[in-house]
Amino acid sequence: MDEFDLIENYFKPLASQGPPSFELLDDVSMWTPPEGHSIVLSKDVMVSGIHFFENENPELVARKLLRVNLSDLAASGAIPKGYLLGFMVNERINHDWLKGFVRGLKVEQDNFGLTLFGGDTVKTPNDLCLSLTIIGHQKNGERLGREKAIVGDDIFVTGTIGDASLGLKCIEGELPMDDTLVERLRCPEPRLKIGQALLRRGANAAVDVSDGLLADLGHILKASNVGAQIEKNKTPLSDPALKIVKDSEKYWTTILTGGDDYELIFTSPKQMVDEISVMEKEFGVRITKIGTIIEEKTLQLFDVNGQAEQIIGIGYNHFDNQKT
Amino acid sequence: MDEFDLIENYFKPLASQGPPSFELLDDVSMWTPPEGHSIVLSKDVMVSGIHFFENENPELVARKLLRVNLSDLAASGAIPKGYLLGFMVNERINHDWLKGFVRGLKVEQDNFGLTLFGGDTVKTPNDLCLSLTIIGHQKNGERLGREKAIVGDDIFVTGTIGDASLGLKCIEGELPMDDTLVERLRCPEPRLKIGQALLRRGANAAVDVSDGLLADLGHILKASNVGAQIEKNKTPLSDPALKIVKDSEKYWTTILTGGDDYELIFTSPKQMVDEISVMEKEFGVRITKIGTIIEEKTLQLFDVNGQAEQIIGIGYNHFDNQKT
Repeated sequence: MDEFDLIENYFKPLASQGPPSFELLDDVSMWTPPEGHSIVLSKDVMVSGIHFFENENPELVARKLLRVNLSDLAASGAIPKGYLLGFMVNERINHDWLKGFVRGLKVEQDNFGLTLFGGDTVKTPNDLCLSLTIIGHQKNGERLGREKAIVGDDIFVTGTIGDASLGLKCIEGELPMDDTLVERLRCPEPRLKIGQALLRRGANAAVDVSDGLLADLGHILKASNVGAQIEKNKTPLSDPALKIVKDSEKYWTTILTGGDDYELIFTSPKQMVDEISVMEKEFGVRITKIGTIIEEKTLQLFDVNGQAEQIIGIGYNHFDNQKT
Repeated sequence: MDEFDLIENYFKPLASQGPPSFELLDDVSMWTPPEGHSIVLSKDVMVSGIHFFENENPELVARKLLRVNLSDLAASGAIPKGYLLGFMVNERINHDWLKGFVRGLKVEQDNFGLTLFGGDTVKTPNDLCLSLTIIGHQKNGERLGREKAIVGDDIFVTGTIGDASLGLKCIEGELPMDDTLVERLRCPEPRLKIGQALLRRGANAAVDVSDGLLADLGHILKASNVGAQIEKNKTPLSDPALKIVKDSEKYWTTILTGGDDYELIFTSPKQMVDEISVMEKEFGVRITKIGTIIEEKTLQLFDVNGQAEQIIGIGYNHFDNQKT
């Protein structure tokens, strides 16, 4: 199986005949964004053994790869269009694996209206490695951004927090198996429609929860040069997560720092609060206020009794958990 | 050294404060192409141990990474704008290496007017791996393409062919060291200005020589559903290459199939021939006619005496040399 077989048999069916992909016959792809729109780009790399395992279901690997990239677009309020794939493949990858992987890409192309623009396929003696560039667009220069939080903004999160990292502990055997939690880890939901609506309706900053709730909120605070007060007990938890922290308080740390939920944290002016209640119903997704943006450049986490539990200086490393 | 140190200390100085890069504080970059322009994208992956070596000069590794990607834009006639970098880094990579690598990126950013849009940095236990997405633009939908060759077109190549693959044989010790040849391998020249001029002035198909003269011409023939007659002795050779084939005929194979020259092969209507002489002087680069596009779907290579030396059916694998 060489590069050209791979393209011809696996990747070409994912591409368009004309632009942007030209049946992958060319090294370049070409695309004209809608009039008055800018392009929005993001890139995520996944290395086998670190971000996933070669013996995982390849369909889910493909789906997660696309979904984590789409989540970056969601946090900016962009509309997705397609992607470029860097595929570093070793000899252990067989036709069955490839079929599953391509099936996963196709499922998400259909779900999110994407096209494979192009990419590069190389053989490697190393672990399988996937590099994806996602391409989206939005009206001229409009985006939610980490640097846009304003003192007095409400801080909200979508969905529930902590499920993915608790799901990992289920897989690792530390917690009893729970399919709901594991599913959240394996197939996160990029909040594209919510991100686009937030941008349209006047929200300020947004970030997706990939590094962890505290770390990612920290990214907003650092970029916006502000601080935050948040209430731990406002953190929206799923039923299984709720049960786990009832049994053992220590899993609060997992929930607050674990990451991989791909929910949105966003900040918006106080007067948007009613609008956000409307959005909750419109999109059928919980949207929960967890705190407020403050001037003092610290992240203050309050416990159930309103006592400051943790006060963290704003800087990258303080928020960085120990994930590789 | 963690991801945030890397971004803060090495990559941020390569990025813009506002769009497209927003100081790399966000996961997305955003860019508005000039009015009426489409975006042109390409992606190339380089794995250490295959496409370069970790003990090579990191400045040259960075420069080549950008240059091979720029060469893809050159073959489409696009104008470069910037790039996203996927950086899979292992523990052997130290600060000196990083400094050199970033210096190389900066040199080419200045040479070609590029900005670092964004990217992703991950730690890997594997060999260093670099994935680059190049971003360019061109007037609405206009591009040179592999599928655009027309029967009767002249076939031209820019510069000289075979130097890079002979340079590799110098490094490997099979040929005596020759700095000119090795330089061609280490720091190829993307023919951006020529590609843009060819598009403007009415050339049809183009491809850059990465897989080898015969292989890459083969890509045009397959995509355009045509054939070609080319004359081996018309292949433009540098002085050192000329000396090598005079000493040993066998190096013709290296020259015709070796690749990595990043010159352009292009096809253009017969009436463009005078225009092309003008371009030779304008850009100070040899542009040599090596053959003609024919209807019969074979690639016919003629020797010095006008005898058909090799007739190759058009298909990917026939043209594929044995490079990994």
